[in-house]
Amino acid sequence: MAEGQDTPTLRFAIAGLGTAGCMMLPAVHKHPHMQLTAAADVDAEPLEHVQRDLQVEIHRTVAELCQSPNVDAIYLATPTHLHTEHALMALEQGKHVVLEKPMALTLDDAERMIQTAERCGVQLVVGHSHSFERPIRAMREIVQSGELGRLRMLHNWYFTDWMYRPRNVGELNTALGGGVTFRQGSHQFDIIRMIGGGLVRSVRAMTGVWDAQRPTEGSHVVYLEFEDGTPAAAVYSGYDRFHTAEITFGVGEQGQLANLSAYGRARQALRSLEGDDAEASLKRASAQYGGARSRQPSEPAPHPPFYGLTLASCERGDIRQSADGLTIYGEHNKRDIPLDTGETGRDAVVRELYDAVVHHRPPAHSGRWGKSNLEVCLAVLESAQKRQEIVLAHQIAAPA
Amino acid sequence: MAEGQDTPTLRFAIAGLGTAGCMMLPAVHKHPHMQLTAAADVDAEPLEHVQRDLQVEIHRTVAELCQSPNVDAIYLATPTHLHTEHALMALEQGKHVVLEKPMALTLDDAERMIQTAERCGVQLVVGHSHSFERPIRAMREIVQSGELGRLRMLHNWYFTDWMYRPRNVGELNTALGGGVTFRQGSHQFDIIRMIGGGLVRSVRAMTGVWDAQRPTEGSHVVYLEFEDGTPAAAVYSGYDRFHTAEITFGVGEQGQLANLSAYGRARQALRSLEGDDAEASLKRASAQYGGARSRQPSEPAPHPPFYGLTLASCERGDIRQSADGLTIYGEHNKRDIPLDTGETGRDAVVRELYDAVVHHRPPAHSGRWGKSNLEVCLAVLESAQKRQEIVLAHQIAAPA
Repeated sequence: MAEGQDTPTLRFAIAGLGTAGCMMLPAVHKHPHMQLTAAADVDAEPLEHVQRDLQVEIHRTVAELCQSPNVDAIYLATPTHLHTEHALMALEQGKHVVLEKPMALTLDDAERMIQTAERCGVQLVVGHSHSFERPIRAMREIVQSGELGRLRMLHNWYFTDWMYRPRNVGELNTALGGGVTFRQGSHQFDIIRMIGGGLVRSVRAMTGVWDAQRPTEGSHVVYLEFEDGTPAAAVYSGYDRFHTAEITFGVGEQGQLANLSAYGRARQALRSLEGDDAEASLKRASAQYGGARSRQPSEPAPHPPFYGLTLASCERGDIRQSADGLTIYGEHNKRDIPLDTGETGRDAVVRELYDAVVHHRPPAHSGRWGKSNLEVCLAVLESAQKRQEIVLAHQIAAPA
Repeated sequence: MAEGQDTPTLRFAIAGLGTAGCMMLPAVHKHPHMQLTAAADVDAEPLEHVQRDLQVEIHRTVAELCQSPNVDAIYLATPTHLHTEHALMALEQGKHVVLEKPMALTLDDAERMIQTAERCGVQLVVGHSHSFERPIRAMREIVQSGELGRLRMLHNWYFTDWMYRPRNVGELNTALGGGVTFRQGSHQFDIIRMIGGGLVRSVRAMTGVWDAQRPTEGSHVVYLEFEDGTPAAAVYSGYDRFHTAEITFGVGEQGQLANLSAYGRARQALRSLEGDDAEASLKRASAQYGGARSRQPSEPAPHPPFYGLTLASCERGDIRQSADGLTIYGEHNKRDIPLDTGETGRDAVVRELYDAVVHHRPPAHSGRWGKSNLEVCLAVLESAQKRQEIVLAHQIAAPA
């Protein structure tokens, strides 16, 4: 980091050039004081592309990347089951870390990372997750302002094709952090905890594995209750049937218009594949840096991002997303608030890290926040297995 | 009952000429072998109207009605807290009974009614509730057919203006059977139990009282789990903000198009009332027989009834209501099934009673079915109060 300035440049690296890694690139480029200086991946091909396009250092291992003297901070978008190993390595080398969700597979691992970051005097931010996105932050602000009275009920309801999009082995294996409870629950519980203030008291849930060919959680129904008694529910199905975009103005997760006329497209595409490695190859080809999806022009999305239907109910009003902002169903009238989506969720991730490192501003999505979200994911899995309510013990409050 | 025929005429009486009583009238008139012979109410005015219009016996008390030799069956649409007294009276007099939901306020009272009906050799049907309606029955049929595989998840989500429509004292007092958990939960849990097979294992829930002026449950979030592990969620808000008609094609509970442009209308109308008795008077004036609402032309509704958003997810497909029937989100395609709504839910109530009495066909919505629904309502209230999961003990299976 270039010292001695109010706004020094932070040298940033991305480890893992898959979907998440590629999606973070525009945010790094956009931040005025961030510079991408390095990248790492196990595959040579995306590294060659990224080196050619962006003139950065490349590394075949995270261990090697962590030794680089040209890197201040690393975004770890590596497979979930490697998060702990990679994060500890980076933190011990004095690198600030942005860690993809879920941050780990156990609370002990999460705690080790948090304590290591503290001991090494570096920042740990967990993200991207959807409470970084403008609509969720705006809901949080309105709830917190008290203008609609106390929060009374909170819902997130999301039906997608997650289970049938091209997946790698880790994404379909719960023991490796796969399945929708770990991968998508991390978003839902993050959204719910951020709007609801963070302190979940208990969880009662059931998960579903509906397709023996993809033996990991593809659905869940989760009842959550905050310390103050406020109830919330999170429902997810990744089985590519009914899509919640039907009830969110046709808008999908990235703010794009969902193609609702092509029914069951993800499942159909998957069925047409042949050969054992076909799915993994397709995933690499489309998601990796240099692949089809990563090359898409990064024009701004026409709408704010929708992580399904989020509905916050306060004593004197409900709030949900409109096509271009929020709708407030108030005491006397219903009004739409447009939202400026110039700053994307990933822009906010990069900003949060930068502000933590340079301006010593505690990150909202700290290691402890990520650990709280992970605790909910684990409680959902445990509640489903034991068929009983799980009381939580590691929740922290959302920042004021 | 006129004996000695295959299709004898059943002489029917209605006790309580409020909203529910008036809504049952067309179904009685429509049934080819039902004859309305008597009515009872505490108020003279609706009785005079009904006598003038329909030339039936009138009674000022249920006790008196139960003595009538011209009555075979009574629909009890009297206040909830009087159900037990009235039903026992009618059953002891050898009258068949259709009892409004919730059937009672305690499981003991429900059991007394069930046993009394058995001892007296008469039929007890609990209804109307929304699993009598065609869309719910059709969902149940498809789930039970197994064509989409095992049921995996079930939701009913309903946001209305229930709390701010004109209410009488009993409707706003939980101790008298008021509030949305008793009054509307009786529909939701009935829908969920009918589609899901009936056997709920446990309930975890939180209720909400958001308006000190109307101190009864106006909302709830309910997690239910069936014996076989299938999860379900029921969400209700009666606070007249966001309406689920927005996500059910604009169609309301009776199949009519909801007026979504007039925001917060129920609350506004209520605020404009003056005087202590104004709300009760308005309720009587609009809902009682002879009042504004009861005089509305009984043209068929343009769409099937929608009790909010009901979504059933099976292993190989989701089902929800379309504007005119059901949408099946299947393995390979999505298709709409139109539904014949010539038989309304209340027509089905009357048919179910008739078939039970005359053709000895066990009613689906028996006393034990109603008791099972009541058990869920009570468990929701208990779970909310104790903040813990409640395991159920009186559930019966839905009829095959």
